Amino acid sequence: MVHVTILKFPISSPADTSPLDRLKAIGTETDDILAVVGKTEGNGCVNDFSRTLASAVWTPLLPKTAITIFSGGTEGVLSPHVTFVLRHHEYTGLMAEVMHTERIEPHNLGTLLQAEQVERATRRAQAAMRSNVADGSELCTNLVLVKCPLLTSTQIERLRMGGMPLRTTDTYESMAISRHASALGVAWALGEAASPDLRGFVQGRDIEAIRAKKLDEVACSRASCSSGAELDDCHILVLATSVNDPRYAVQKAISGVMEDAIDAKSVMALLKQIEDEEGEVIQVFAKAEADPRGHIRDQRHTMNTDSDIHSTRHARAAVGGLLAGLVGDTEIYVSGGAEGQGPPGGGSLCIVYAVGL
Amino acid sequence: MVHVTILKFPISSPADTSPLDRLKAIGTETDDILAVVGKTEGNGCVNDFSRTLASAVWTPLLPKTAITIFSGGTEGVLSPHVTFVLRHHEYTGLMAEVMHTERIEPHNLGTLLQAEQVERATRRAQAAMRSNVADGSELCTNLVLVKCPLLTSTQIERLRMGGMPLRTTDTYESMAISRHASALGVAWALGEAASPDLRGFVQGRDIEAIRAKKLDEVACSRASCSSGAELDDCHILVLATSVNDPRYAVQKAISGVMEDAIDAKSVMALLKQIEDEEGEVIQVFAKAEADPRGHIRDQRHTMNTDSDIHSTRHARAAVGGLLAGLVGDTEIYVSGGAEGQGPPGGGSLCIVYAVGL
Amino acid sequence: MVHVTILKFPISSPADTSPLDRLKAIGTETDDILAVVGKTEGNGCVNDFSRTLASAVWTPLLPKTAITIFSGGTEGVLSPHVTFVLRHHEYTGLMAEVMHTERIEPHNLGTLLQAEQVERATRRAQAAMRSNVADGSELCTNLVLVKCPLLTSTQIERLRMGGMPLRTTDTYESMAISRHASALGVAWALGEAASPDLRGFVQGRDIEAIRAKKLDEVACSRASCSSGAELDDCHILVLATSVNDPRYAVQKAISGVMEDAIDAKSVMALLKQIEDEEGEVIQVFAKAEADPRGHIRDQRHTMNTDSDIHSTRHARAAVGGLLAGLVGDTEIYVSGGAEGQGPPGGGSLCIVYAVGL
Amino acid sequence: MVHVTILKFPISSPADTSPLDRLKAIGTETDDILAVVGKTEGNGCVNDFSRTLASAVWTPLLPKTAITIFSGGTEGVLSPHVTFVLRHHEYTGLMAEVMHTERIEPHNLGTLLQAEQVERATRRAQAAMRSNVADGSELCTNLVLVKCPLLTSTQIERLRMGGMPLRTTDTYESMAISRHASALGVAWALGEAASPDLRGFVQGRDIEAIRAKKLDEVACSRASCSSGAELDDCHILVLATSVNDPRYAVQKAISGVMEDAIDAKSVMALLKQIEDEEGEVIQVFAKAEADPRGHIRDQRHTMNTDSDIHSTRHARAAVGGLLAGLVGDTEIYVSGGAEGQGPPGGGSLCIVYAVGL
Repeated sequence: MVHVTILKFPISSPADTSPLDRLKAIGTETDDILAVVGKTEGNGCVNDFSRTLASAVWTPLLPKTAITIFSGGTEGVLSPHVTFVLRHHEYTGLMAEVMHTERIEPHNLGTLLQAEQVERATRRAQAAMRSNVADGSELCTNLVLVKCPLLTSTQIERLRMGGMPLRTTDTYESMAISRHASALGVAWALGEAASPDLRGFVQGRDIEAIRAKKLDEVACSRASCSSGAELDDCHILVLATSVNDPRYAVQKAISGVMEDAIDAKSVMALLKQIEDEEGEVIQVFAKAEADPRGHIRDQRHTMNTDSDIHSTRHARAAVGGLLAGLVGDTEIYVSGGAEGQGPPGGGSLCIVYAVGL
Repeated sequence: MVHVTILKFPISSPADTSPLDRLKAIGTETDDILAVVGKTEGNGCVNDFSRTLASAVWTPLLPKTAITIFSGGTEGVLSPHVTFVLRHHEYTGLMAEVMHTERIEPHNLGTLLQAEQVERATRRAQAAMRSNVADGSELCTNLVLVKCPLLTSTQIERLRMGGMPLRTTDTYESMAISRHASALGVAWALGEAASPDLRGFVQGRDIEAIRAKKLDEVACSRASCSSGAELDDCHILVLATSVNDPRYAVQKAISGVMEDAIDAKSVMALLKQIEDEEGEVIQVFAKAEADPRGHIRDQRHTMNTDSDIHSTRHARAAVGGLLAGLVGDTEIYVSGGAEGQGPPGGGSLCIVYAVGL
Repeated sequence: MVHVTILKFPISSPADTSPLDRLKAIGTETDDILAVVGKTEGNGCVNDFSRTLASAVWTPLLPKTAITIFSGGTEGVLSPHVTFVLRHHEYTGLMAEVMHTERIEPHNLGTLLQAEQVERATRRAQAAMRSNVADGSELCTNLVLVKCPLLTSTQIERLRMGGMPLRTTDTYESMAISRHASALGVAWALGEAASPDLRGFVQGRDIEAIRAKKLDEVACSRASCSSGAELDDCHILVLATSVNDPRYAVQKAISGVMEDAIDAKSVMALLKQIEDEEGEVIQVFAKAEADPRGHIRDQRHTMNTDSDIHSTRHARAAVGGLLAGLVGDTEIYVSGGAEGQGPPGGGSLCIVYAVGL
Repeated sequence: MVHVTILKFPISSPADTSPLDRLKAIGTETDDILAVVGKTEGNGCVNDFSRTLASAVWTPLLPKTAITIFSGGTEGVLSPHVTFVLRHHEYTGLMAEVMHTERIEPHNLGTLLQAEQVERATRRAQAAMRSNVADGSELCTNLVLVKCPLLTSTQIERLRMGGMPLRTTDTYESMAISRHASALGVAWALGEAASPDLRGFVQGRDIEAIRAKKLDEVACSRASCSSGAELDDCHILVLATSVNDPRYAVQKAISGVMEDAIDAKSVMALLKQIEDEEGEVIQVFAKAEADPRGHIRDQRHTMNTDSDIHSTRHARAAVGGLLAGLVGDTEIYVSGGAEGQGPPGGGSLCIVYAVGL
C-alpha cells in the first residue's frame, strides 16, 4: 500500500533530526517514512552546505527505501522545517511513491538524457501507484518533486579537460538547466508536453533554445524541481490523489499554477476550494522564479540585474511572503527556479490539506 | 493651499528623471512638486549609491522647497518608481506638508536630540496644514515619512578620535538607531507615545534600552522612517486627510498597521474598506522588518542569522511580495527596518486611493 | 602633443569631485585632463550605481574630449580614488591618447563587431600618438584601458522580443563577454593575436568557443577591459612610453602579466626593475580573475562556486591584497574579470612610475 | 609526550574526510590525531553550515581526546583544506596540547567569564606541556588557536525573554565579542596583558569599552580566535616550540604580527628567517581584519561600509591573497576578525616550517 499522510515539523538547524523523536512520540515508526522533504536555511544555490548537512544527518536515520529532498533557502519569512511523507496502512486519499534515477553523469546534466531518466522514473512511480489502486478508480497526479544534481567547478574543469561537451561553465546556471531538464521529463511522463512534434523539436534543438524562445510551450504544472550538490542521481517523489472514495479521505491534494509571482488570485481560488470542503491546509508546495523577461505585469523587476543576490533567492522571499500571508503559515515549501515548472515568471503550486476533521 | 494629489511613474534606473516629462505632458508644473518619494534599486543599506544617484539627478530639477525621499531596495517583485506629491489648487481631500530638520550632527544620530528635531519639524508641518484647513474641519494625519542620516565609517572614526560618545561602531546598525529616533519623534508629535512617564523613561535610559526591552511601548503606527548617506538633516513629509467635505474628495488615505510580516488580514481589511468606497489604490506605503525576536507566530525565521543578506532586504522582499500580490501592483513603497514604526515584526501601513472616479 | 603625467587622489565617495580642486591648487587646468580613471566602491557588477554616480557627477566638469573610465569594486584593502591622465606641454616620457568607439548595439555586444570597433579605435589612438613622436623614435604601448557596455535585463528582453540573437540571458555574464570582445580587439590592434589563422578561427566560430577551449591563445597582455551600464559605446585610453630620450623622462610605464592570482614573483620583478631605475611607483593597473579552471597551482579555489559573492569581487579582493602589500599602497587600480587580458587565471599588469626625482 | 608534527591535505568539500585515508596510507594512526584544524568554504559568518558539516562528519572519526577547529571562509584564492596536529613519539621540536573550556552559557558570551575560562584552559594546556619538557629547557608558546561559540537569534530571544543581560542583539556582532573575550583570556594566560591595572580596568568597565577606546592595549600577538555555531564550549589548541635541542628539530614555529592588512614587510621578515634556516613553510596561521578605524595607512577602505559583504570576508580575501602570494601556497589558515589578536587592523601570525630536510 502506498497510501500516505503528510506531517511537518520545525527544525532548529539543518542538523536537527529531532522531528524523528516527535514522530515516534505519536506512534509512527521510522520504517513508515517514504520521504523527508525539507527546507533548510542555506542560500539555496551552489554552495549551500545546509542541504548537504541535512542530507548527511538524516540519511543514516532513514529506511534505505526512503528518499530525501532538501531545498535550500528560507529567505524572508520562510521557516526551516521538514515534511514527512508517511506510509499509512489504511486508505487516506493521498498516495505517494518515491524513485531514483540512475546516476546523471556530469556531461549529461541538463540534457535530454536527464529528461528521459526523470521521465522513466516518474512513469515507474506512477505505474507502481496505479497497481495499488482498486480497479476502476482514478489517480490524479498532483505533484512530482524532483531533486537533481548540479555541476561544481571541479566537474566543469574535468569535462573541459576531457573535451566533453559543456552545457555551461557557470555553476549557478547549471542548477537551472538541471531543473529544466527534470521538468521536461516530468512533463513527458504526465503527458503535459506530449505532442510528438514538440519532442522532435526538443531533440532536434537544444533545451537552451527552448528556454530562450519557447518559454511557455513546455511548462509542466505539476513539476517542482530543485538542484543540489548533495546527490548525483535524481530523487523523485510523486504525490497523487486517489479519488475512488472521497468519503473516507483524510488528506487530499489540489494543484494549480501561479501565473506570475504576484498571482494571489490563483492561490486564493485554491484556498477557497479547500475552505468549501472544510479542509485545513497542511502544506503548500510552490515553485517561484524571477520572470526571465525582466518584468511582472509590465512593471520592471530587478531580480535579474542584482549581482549581490541571486534571482532564486529574491523569488523565494517574495513568493514565500505572499503564500505565507495567504495561508498564515511560514513553514511552507517554496523553491526557487521554476524553469518549465508552470508559466514563465510563475510556478507550479500544490496544496495538501486535511479533510473530515 | 496644501491640497495634494499623488501620482506615480516607473523609472528605468536611479538616474531616470523622465517622469518629469510625463508630468509636463499632463500639464503639471514642476513648481507644483512638493515631494518626490522614490524606490530605487540599490541594496537599501549603507553603501546604496542608487539613492545618492537619484538624489543627485533629481534635486537640481526640483523647486527649492521640494524634498526628496529615496528609499533603496526593490528586492523580490518590487519595481523601481517615483511617487510625486503634487500641490493642487483645489480641494482634493488629501493634504501634505514637507519640512526639514536642522542638520543632525553625527554624535547626535540616534539620540533624543534627533527625536526632538523630528518631533518639532513634524509639529511645524502639522500646524502649517491646520492653518490651511477651514474652520471646524478635522485633520487626520495618515503618514509621516522621514528620511534621516546614518553614520559612515569615516564619521565613526572622527567621533572616536574626538572622544565623542558613540551609539554604535556598526554602520548598518546606525541606520536602525536613526530610524528609531525619528520614529520616536513622530510618535511624540502625533501623541502616540505621549505619556510623560514614557518620555521620562526615555530620557533617563537610552533608546537602545527601549529597543531591547520595551519593543511595543513606543511604536508609532503612522511613522515610516528610512536612513541614508545622501543627506545630513531629516526630510519629512506629512500626509493627512481633510475630512470636512468627503463628497468632493478625489484622493484619500487610510492607515493601519501590519501586526507581523505575514499579516494579510489587516491589509485585506483596509482594501475592503477602499473597495466599499469604490476607491482605487494609488499607492501603498509600508514598513517591514524581520521580527527582532527571531520568529513569526512562533515559527522561527532566519533573517537575523543570515550573514549574506541583511534582514532589511529580506523583509522588503517578503512583505513586498505579500502587498504586491494583494494589490496587484509592484510599484509600491515598501521600506525596511520598522523600529518603533508599528508593532515589532510588523510595520506601519498607509494606502492612498482615488475616489469618485 | 600628447605627453602626459599621471596623478591620483583619494575620493570620499563616488560623488566626490574634490580632486578637481586639488588639481587646480597645483596649477593644473581642467582642460588638460585627458582621462579620469577611477575606482569606485560599488560591487563592480551589473547593478553598480557607484560607477553611474561617478560618471554623472564627473562628466559635466570635464572637457568634452576627455573620457571617464570608472571601475567599480574596492573589495578588501582597495581604496576609492581617481587617477588623472593629464596633458603635459613638455616631454615627459609617458604618452596617452583617448578614443571612443561608435555605439555598441546590444545585439552586437560581445561579438566580433565589438572587437573590431575596439581594434579600430585602438589603432586610431596609436596612429595619433605616433604622429606626435619625433622621427626615428620608438613607441611602446604599455596599456590599453577599455570601458565597455553590458546588457541589462531590459535590453535582453528587447532582443528576445525582437527575435535578435542573444549571446547570453545572464546580465552578469554579459559583462564577461563584453570584456572578452574588447580584449580581442586590443590584441588585434597590438598584433598580439595577429595570426590570420586565429582570426579565421574566431570568425568561423564564436568568442564563447574560444573562451571555453582556447583560453590561452588569444590573451592580450596589455589590455585591461571593464564593463558597465553607464555607457553605450567603448571608452579607450592608450598609454605608451616614448623611448627616444629617456634622460629627460619624468614618468614611465612598465608592463607584464601575472601568471596567476598569486604570482608575486612577476610583480616583484617589475618592482625590482623600477627600484633599479630609482623610480617611484605612481600607479598600478592590474586585471584579476578567478581561474576559470577552478584551481590555482593545482589547489582548488572556491570563487566559482560561491553563489553569495561573484568571482570578480573575490578576485579583486585577493589580487588587490597582494599588490597593495607589495607596493605598500591601497589606492591602486585592480579590475576584475580578465578574459583574454593576460593568462587565464592571471591578468595584465602595468605600473606607472616617476623617475629622475 | 606531546611532541607533534603538522601536516595538511586539501579537501574537496566540507564533508570530505578522505585526508584520513591519506594519513593511514603514510602509516599514521587516527589515534595520534590531537587536532584537526580546517578551513571550510562557507561564509565564515553566523550561518556558515560548512563548519557544522565538517564538524559533524569529522568528529565521529576522531579520538575522543582530539579537538576540531573549523574556520569558515576561503574567500579569494584560499583553498579548503585540513591541517592535522599529530602526536609524534619522538622529539620533533614542535609541541602541542589541546583543551576544552566548560560550556559558555549564552549570557556569558563575550564577557569576563568567557575570558577567564579561556585563560584557565590555556594555562592548563601550558602546564601539561611543560610537564613533558626536560628540565632546564625552555618552552616558547607560538600560537593559541581558539574556537568559541556565538549567539544565534534563538539564544538572543531566550536571553531577552529571561530578562538576562544582552551584550548584543546582532548575531554577527556576537562573533566579534566572543573572539575578543577569548583573545583576552589568551593574553592573560600568556602574560601579554598581565598588568593588574588593566585587569582592574577590564573588570570595572566592559569589553565593549575596551574595544571602542583602547584598541591597542589588550592585543595578544599569539592568539587566533574564531567563532562558530557548531559548539558551545571553547576548543583550544596551544602550539609551542621546545628549544632545548634545536639540532634534532624537524618542525618549528615562528611568530609575529602583521601591523596592518598590507604589512608584507613583517611577513617577509619571518620568511627570510625561515629561509636562513633552510626551512620549508608547512603552514601559515594568520588573523585578518578590516581596520576598525576605516583606513589603512591613512587611505580609506570600504570594508566597514559594505552592506553586501561582511568585513571579515573582505579581510580574509585580501590578507589571504597577500600571504598566498608571499608563500606561494593557497592552502593556508587565514581567519577573519582579529579583535585583540594582534594590532588593530593587523593580526597575529604564526608560521610552522620544516627544518633539517
